[in-house]
Amino acid sequence: MSELDPDLTEAAVADHQREAVAARPPLSRRALLGAAVAGTAGLVVGRVAGPLIPSSPTPTPGPKASSLVAPAVTPFFGVHQAGVSTPLQDHLHFAAFDMLEGARRDDLVNLLRDWSAAAARMTQGLPVSLPESRGSDPDASADTGESLGLPASGLTITIGLGPRLFESDGVDRYDIAAARPPELEPLPRFDGDALSEVLSDGDLGVQVCADDPQVAVHAVRNLSRIAIGRAAIRWSQMGFMHTTKDSAIPQTPRNLLGFKDGSNNILGANEAVVDQHVWLPPTSIPAWAAGGTYMVVRKIAMVIDAWDRQPMAKQQAIIGRTKETGAPLSGGEEFTAPDFEARVDGMDAIDHAAHVRLAHPSSNGGTRILRRGYNYVDGTDAYGRLEAGLLFISYQRSPGQFITLQRALRADLLNPFIAHLGSAIFVVPPGAPEGGFVGKTLLG
Amino acid sequence: MSELDPDLTEAAVADHQREAVAARPPLSRRALLGAAVAGTAGLVVGRVAGPLIPSSPTPTPGPKASSLVAPAVTPFFGVHQAGVSTPLQDHLHFAAFDMLEGARRDDLVNLLRDWSAAAARMTQGLPVSLPESRGSDPDASADTGESLGLPASGLTITIGLGPRLFESDGVDRYDIAAARPPELEPLPRFDGDALSEVLSDGDLGVQVCADDPQVAVHAVRNLSRIAIGRAAIRWSQMGFMHTTKDSAIPQTPRNLLGFKDGSNNILGANEAVVDQHVWLPPTSIPAWAAGGTYMVVRKIAMVIDAWDRQPMAKQQAIIGRTKETGAPLSGGEEFTAPDFEARVDGMDAIDHAAHVRLAHPSSNGGTRILRRGYNYVDGTDAYGRLEAGLLFISYQRSPGQFITLQRALRADLLNPFIAHLGSAIFVVPPGAPEGGFVGKTLLG
Repeated sequence: MSELDPDLTEAAVADHQREAVAARPPLSRRALLGAAVAGTAGLVVGRVAGPLIPSSPTPTPGPKASSLVAPAVTPFFGVHQAGVSTPLQDHLHFAAFDMLEGARRDDLVNLLRDWSAAAARMTQGLPVSLPESRGSDPDASADTGESLGLPASGLTITIGLGPRLFESDGVDRYDIAAARPPELEPLPRFDGDALSEVLSDGDLGVQVCADDPQVAVHAVRNLSRIAIGRAAIRWSQMGFMHTTKDSAIPQTPRNLLGFKDGSNNILGANEAVVDQHVWLPPTSIPAWAAGGTYMVVRKIAMVIDAWDRQPMAKQQAIIGRTKETGAPLSGGEEFTAPDFEARVDGMDAIDHAAHVRLAHPSSNGGTRILRRGYNYVDGTDAYGRLEAGLLFISYQRSPGQFITLQRALRADLLNPFIAHLGSAIFVVPPGAPEGGFVGKTLLG
Repeated sequence: MSELDPDLTEAAVADHQREAVAARPPLSRRALLGAAVAGTAGLVVGRVAGPLIPSSPTPTPGPKASSLVAPAVTPFFGVHQAGVSTPLQDHLHFAAFDMLEGARRDDLVNLLRDWSAAAARMTQGLPVSLPESRGSDPDASADTGESLGLPASGLTITIGLGPRLFESDGVDRYDIAAARPPELEPLPRFDGDALSEVLSDGDLGVQVCADDPQVAVHAVRNLSRIAIGRAAIRWSQMGFMHTTKDSAIPQTPRNLLGFKDGSNNILGANEAVVDQHVWLPPTSIPAWAAGGTYMVVRKIAMVIDAWDRQPMAKQQAIIGRTKETGAPLSGGEEFTAPDFEARVDGMDAIDHAAHVRLAHPSSNGGTRILRRGYNYVDGTDAYGRLEAGLLFISYQRSPGQFITLQRALRADLLNPFIAHLGSAIFVVPPGAPEGGFVGKTLLG
């Protein structure tokens, strides 16, 4: 592992806020809409024109046609898959699929081809069309309909391949075992893991994000329908995160501990840092994965009621930052670099086992990951306690980056208040060129 | 029951669309923001000014400070409780609470008082303050923090009282049995009920709606925390619905069957119709409930995979409307009145057991209810099938309105594709005046 980050000087970290603002797309959606109307926009934005069902005798008027905020379209095709360095959307529906017993290599190839074609349409706000839905009953309609008339809502669909897809119990089901990236192994067991099989793993992992939960759910549902006869959902998870990506002053979203989550995260728009820590370089082995990345998914439950009983000072000591502003307890503002040497009244300002210290790149040889987690609430347990937490998702060019950071958290003061219930790892192939499909570099 | 609706002539129904547009608030949020800035707005809008934590040395800049859409504030206090005739928000967190064993009348009174005080603050975008959180550990912080810096997001908190609060197994726990409205009885068993106790009933039912799920979750979590030692959550449910309330051309949202849901619903802004069908009149018995209403909650699961295998024509015949536009199969547009006598090729255009026919006011002596349901997705079951459906919520001045309509659905062609998993009923007291509390008319 050589994750040393030359940018990670204290000054650079202190500059994070300025960088964050600078790295943001310079135009608001409204400005982009204006530009699009004027025909000068460089990005694809705005609702795709035309009736959603071509056979419609009377095209319905577009929703929010006169709304102030133009819905975003993020292209599915590209050098990298969308949904990794893309600014966080407000909603997530993650789904892990297993290939069905008896499915063959052709089924896998056709599934990835159909998914890519459907994803290309859905991410433009279009319904799934018939050729992709071949797995369904031929009499059934191609699209399930619940997103008819809704804008694309920034939908991204990011497809990953799990270790067992390459080899399951020693069986090379799809003739790809030799192409398995050596680093694509099930994650090691970590201290405090309380994993459930029904919330873990998967032959295929699909991260679906959108600014409208109905659009995200529609995408997972239709991908699942397209998979009929070839693959089925193993587990899935909804999530939400309050983003302020359209604001002039972006705010770091808060997790359900009530703290800002991601103050020191890699910014997707910072291409140099993403290239260094996230994307697999052109020299990757195997070469088919170049331009891809590794996705780690962890379902982390929070012991909400116990956490909420802690005094504010204790919560802040555990995290190592203030709750309101997110400033490190060593002083300053949210994006001020933590000073782990600082002392207050003869004590460490930031506890030796505070979360921010253990997780910080400077405590881990510069190791960084791009986190893209979402808060979840699954309702309430039999004791009336919220079943809530974080669906942690991280992207990194090596699983070792996540493993290093997760092992560093062994002594984390936060551990009594969280439990890792689910775990999965996937290699994310590079993006597909227009009309191609994700996985083609592996499967031809 | 005298639910005959004099407005319900065919012409009136055909006029629904015009009415829908006319009944909407005439100004967009943006226009209201402009008006507020100009000091001429009649409604309370905009983010509440000032630091969120008064002790904060450096107030953080407001999120989305320069955002295009002003977050709405819906006042908690008023003649009626908010969240009934209020335009639908995008997200729901519903929670049913049970009083704890040993709680006394004073506990109930104080709980409702504390909840009202907290609701009044949270609906303004303010954190919970210490006096309300008396149920919590005194060292713990008053507010859990995850909505710090977020706008009020149209938050409404609507509190209802269940039948067992008035009398449980013959015991008058809180000295209110004599004040129980005679109509407040557990709902009768309906054909096809597949109810689970852990998804049903509750001494108290709290509907929390907001345009941001984090704001809704925060409210339920803090109400639950305030209730410590007095009441605990029995069950809860998250939901979402894509609203277009800010659009010039409002669209009826779609449920997860893919069909528009609520084309013929009562519009909250149509005060005369709401007064007639929803609010308990001044002459109500008991008098303490006047200005209130009854809330029915049903968790209705959809058998998504079976539904998705049906051809479009079959789905449309089951519902009695087209999927794309929502027009009745007898012709016209979404808001055209269904013609149940119309015949096509010698057959009924709308099947005798189609959902729209059985549920229609004209088939039920004019009976109408105000529906406020939300789509839900709970993840995936062990077979990879989406656990999804509708958290149906309706408001009506008599439970009999719901019972009439639900019984009419006995032969509904839709029944093989749905299952009622949960059920609850609550009487919703009237709103509280500024500084008062919901339930005061009952509990003094």
